[in-house]
Amino acid sequence: MISKNQLKLIRSLAQKKYRKQHQLFLVQGEKNVLELFDTPLVIHSLFVTEAFATLHQAKLANLTYTLTDDANLAKASTIVSNNAALAVVNIPPAELPNDSQWLIALDGVSDPGNLGTIIRVADWYGIKHIIASEACADPYNPKTISATMGSFARVSVTQVDLPVYLANSRQPIYGAYLGGENVHRTQFSQTGILLMGSESHGIGKEAGEHVTNKITIPAFGHAESLNVAMATGIILDNIFRT
Amino acid sequence: MISKNQLKLIRSLAQKKYRKQHQLFLVQGEKNVLELFDTPLVIHSLFVTEAFATLHQAKLANLTYTLTDDANLAKASTIVSNNAALAVVNIPPAELPNDSQWLIALDGVSDPGNLGTIIRVADWYGIKHIIASEACADPYNPKTISATMGSFARVSVTQVDLPVYLANSRQPIYGAYLGGENVHRTQFSQTGILLMGSESHGIGKEAGEHVTNKITIPAFGHAESLNVAMATGIILDNIFRT
Repeated sequence: MISKNQLKLIRSLAQKKYRKQHQLFLVQGEKNVLELFDTPLVIHSLFVTEAFATLHQAKLANLTYTLTDDANLAKASTIVSNNAALAVVNIPPAELPNDSQWLIALDGVSDPGNLGTIIRVADWYGIKHIIASEACADPYNPKTISATMGSFARVSVTQVDLPVYLANSRQPIYGAYLGGENVHRTQFSQTGILLMGSESHGIGKEAGEHVTNKITIPAFGHAESLNVAMATGIILDNIFRT
Repeated sequence: MISKNQLKLIRSLAQKKYRKQHQLFLVQGEKNVLELFDTPLVIHSLFVTEAFATLHQAKLANLTYTLTDDANLAKASTIVSNNAALAVVNIPPAELPNDSQWLIALDGVSDPGNLGTIIRVADWYGIKHIIASEACADPYNPKTISATMGSFARVSVTQVDLPVYLANSRQPIYGAYLGGENVHRTQFSQTGILLMGSESHGIGKEAGEHVTNKITIPAFGHAESLNVAMATGIILDNIFRT
């Protein structure tokens, strides 16, 4: 069972200030917890139902875990339905990726679900690092982690002073705007940075100053905009097509 | 102000059975209500805040509406924050599109948010009709309407017996599967049907029997799948690139 003290810690991790204080975050649900086992991430504590333990006996063989029941687990979980597992995980040290691969940079993407969906689609296209402005959603928000569908384990998100980061990069920076070059016609470089702006205001002025190529997804109908995660996915598909 | 009886009607429309019984649905928030004014959809009743009325005086000139305050409107709304407007709208008669344009067919897409996001991206690419199986989310669910960001007004969704519909179509049917032809290499026909499956089970066996071309978005990384709305957007971008 999850003890009172453990429950208190887990619940506190729904809030950013306690994630920061404890340097811990939550991974919840079968799919996300299973992905965790295959990564170098360090598990602080792990709670699983008997059903999960039976189903994944082999994977649990070398791990310390606490058995819990559905009701107990549901009480601790921040996601709607979790009848499988919950892990408290150490936040890994921030890493700055080297400058010779495709990166995504996000300027003020504030919705945790959008950030998680971007992490998932980045993983689909083999992108390993996302650089996010301080105004972005916390990459360790439980809603972000859930939306990644396990991709949080393969894509790192580092929060930085974005304009400074972009100023120091030697890569071409492709910024998504309305009215830029048609992505269907763009000759993307071998590697570069794809910069996406916030849901409501797009790319900010400061980050925008470092954009070397303005790009746009052509519209054929009358929708005024696309969701930022959707736009990220469509542009990535254009970058990686050969 | 919104009367008690009006409030009762509005609240009931959060549920499918009452939407069906009254043949009415809700459109909420500034963006979605403004889009409504430019469509042939028939407004049953309209509630707006003074701020909205002042800002959009010209658009409201020929409309009957009731002024309400923020608190009253918030009480009626099913969406998180609405300080602008709410409309009760007649569900239009179902229409079956003709067979000489690109259509999207959805087999069991059950999440209202996903359906709304698909409607939005369909509108971006100029698609006017979506055919949905009976197991799909209700296109008039308030969450669906909200997620369309106004595109509900330009894209019709018709629920049908999907396998029967597909059997009778003379168009090529492109079904999204894992392990189909790479969409980057696919020569799409002039018009056709893009068939997408459910979030958890993909395209069902019955609908799948009518697929003429199996297609796949190539993966470059390790994510196991893409969200169905994301996949729809990426495939549409491949269909409409020239």
